[in-house]
Amino acid sequence: MAVYTQVSAERIAELLSRYNVGTLVSAKGIAEGVENSNFLLQTDRDRFILTLYEKRVDAKDLPFFLKLLDHLAARGQPVPPAVADRTGQQIQVVNDRSACLIVFLPGLSPGQPNTAQSRSAGAALGKLHQSLVDFPDLRPNTLSLPGWHELAQRCGNALDEIMPGLGDTVAEELAFLDTNWPADLPHSAIHADLFPDNVLMLDDQVTGIIDFYFACTDIRAYDLAVTHAAWCFDDDGAGFDADRSAALIAGYDEQMPLTDAEREALPILARGASLRFLLTRAWDWLNTPDDALVTRKDPTAFLRRLEFYRAAGSELFGS
Amino acid sequence: MAVYTQVSAERIAELLSRYNVGTLVSAKGIAEGVENSNFLLQTDRDRFILTLYEKRVDAKDLPFFLKLLDHLAARGQPVPPAVADRTGQQIQVVNDRSACLIVFLPGLSPGQPNTAQSRSAGAALGKLHQSLVDFPDLRPNTLSLPGWHELAQRCGNALDEIMPGLGDTVAEELAFLDTNWPADLPHSAIHADLFPDNVLMLDDQVTGIIDFYFACTDIRAYDLAVTHAAWCFDDDGAGFDADRSAALIAGYDEQMPLTDAEREALPILARGASLRFLLTRAWDWLNTPDDALVTRKDPTAFLRRLEFYRAAGSELFGS
Repeated sequence: MAVYTQVSAERIAELLSRYNVGTLVSAKGIAEGVENSNFLLQTDRDRFILTLYEKRVDAKDLPFFLKLLDHLAARGQPVPPAVADRTGQQIQVVNDRSACLIVFLPGLSPGQPNTAQSRSAGAALGKLHQSLVDFPDLRPNTLSLPGWHELAQRCGNALDEIMPGLGDTVAEELAFLDTNWPADLPHSAIHADLFPDNVLMLDDQVTGIIDFYFACTDIRAYDLAVTHAAWCFDDDGAGFDADRSAALIAGYDEQMPLTDAEREALPILARGASLRFLLTRAWDWLNTPDDALVTRKDPTAFLRRLEFYRAAGSELFGS
Repeated sequence: MAVYTQVSAERIAELLSRYNVGTLVSAKGIAEGVENSNFLLQTDRDRFILTLYEKRVDAKDLPFFLKLLDHLAARGQPVPPAVADRTGQQIQVVNDRSACLIVFLPGLSPGQPNTAQSRSAGAALGKLHQSLVDFPDLRPNTLSLPGWHELAQRCGNALDEIMPGLGDTVAEELAFLDTNWPADLPHSAIHADLFPDNVLMLDDQVTGIIDFYFACTDIRAYDLAVTHAAWCFDDDGAGFDADRSAALIAGYDEQMPLTDAEREALPILARGASLRFLLTRAWDWLNTPDDALVTRKDPTAFLRRLEFYRAAGSELFGS
């Protein structure tokens, strides 16, 4: 994680003069989130994040993300909406990139979540989903089953360079999911990437949910499955923690009761979630130079999760 | 610039519990300074920078840097001293690296300094030098004339890969400086790297001088020469600005009057300063992969400065 685009203090101060946010007194490039350039700004009134969207975020998706954040913020959810300038504009252009000034949220991302934090994360996701029941906009999930097929195809034989046999495992899993992926579960806008990195907490309470740049419309319970895969294992995919798992599901269910059909589908959804991160990490692994700007994340950490979910019975999710 | 070492929020909170600085509420990795890892911390009381020293800063030099900062802060200079923990300790070990908790200073580094800012920078450097007259500790400058010879030797013929003829230019300049480098000028502790990046300002007034990790004992007026080379040209070394130059020298001279000998030596010191950054940038250029973490800085931007100082008469500095 790094700052990809340098922006001068003068340019930032000039940008802020479009807003009613006070005068700039400090600006630091920060290492945060997906491949965007982020600056932590302090004015004489408040703190903000300035985000310049790099190649990974498509400018045409920005209105969806911003409307989603506004919708959630209006319902009291701890998300950081983009600030509008004096003319009502949220999206600016800075150094040829789309850019937004975003509300700063306090809090710390847990490095290794505990049980109480997992319960809070589950509850926060449940409240988020509850608040999204009436959100009307749609954005297809490009990283769902057809997207996984495409990624697997683009990786091709190179998957076996990561680990011998990985190509076959992926092909088998895709075939299984083609047959078993649930069709009739409730859909809604989802976060789709709720790793601990994207949750801010103070005293085990959620103070911020950030980085909505994979948000899309998909099976609602799939969001819980992604969150489960992200919160209930050690980083390397080993060390499944049954307490964190139970707490996460219970926290969610209290805020957004799971239907029987959703609960039954969770093992398959979690296999899909594991495959999604296995494939995107594999693609990044194969296409990132050893010495590049971004730390490559180990794809096999999600192969281990996939194997865990394959072996685990459906009782894992309390069904 | 990037964060080289990841530190979890839990580890940072644990570290802060050694200090009387309040409770951690936010921690963001920031892109700042030389090759260290830096985190901007907010507690319920104040803001701090946590620095982990990576390979470029030798742990054995840290006591010199910290004593220098304490000395300057005690004399009201706008520098960020390291905070001592409850036992009086300033240097900690975090993730196997020496680390310091440092006072946060507000202010913005000018992207392209104006004349008023150049005058302020000169004055701030003069006050810094004034405050260092009674600083007793010594640290040899490894990047002075003998160090430049060594760097030139290590770069070898590869200099001509950067620009045909560069090796000869460097050799000629080294021979000239061997003969003409002043021997009898006043020495003191100096910053030695006072680029606009390392100066924080609000309303053209200096609020912070940072990044003392090249500080050393050397010819005092050489520090002014470095600052002149850093502030009075466009980034690419073209576009010398006579107004900024005059303002910088005048600002300095008001606070720390230049002797005739210093003023006369400035053209040679400025040639040395240009050669120093030409050589360190050339070395980094030749030894940094194209796609690496750090943005390579163009060495020829300092060849242009060197050529300018060679051609300019001594009247440039008002002698």
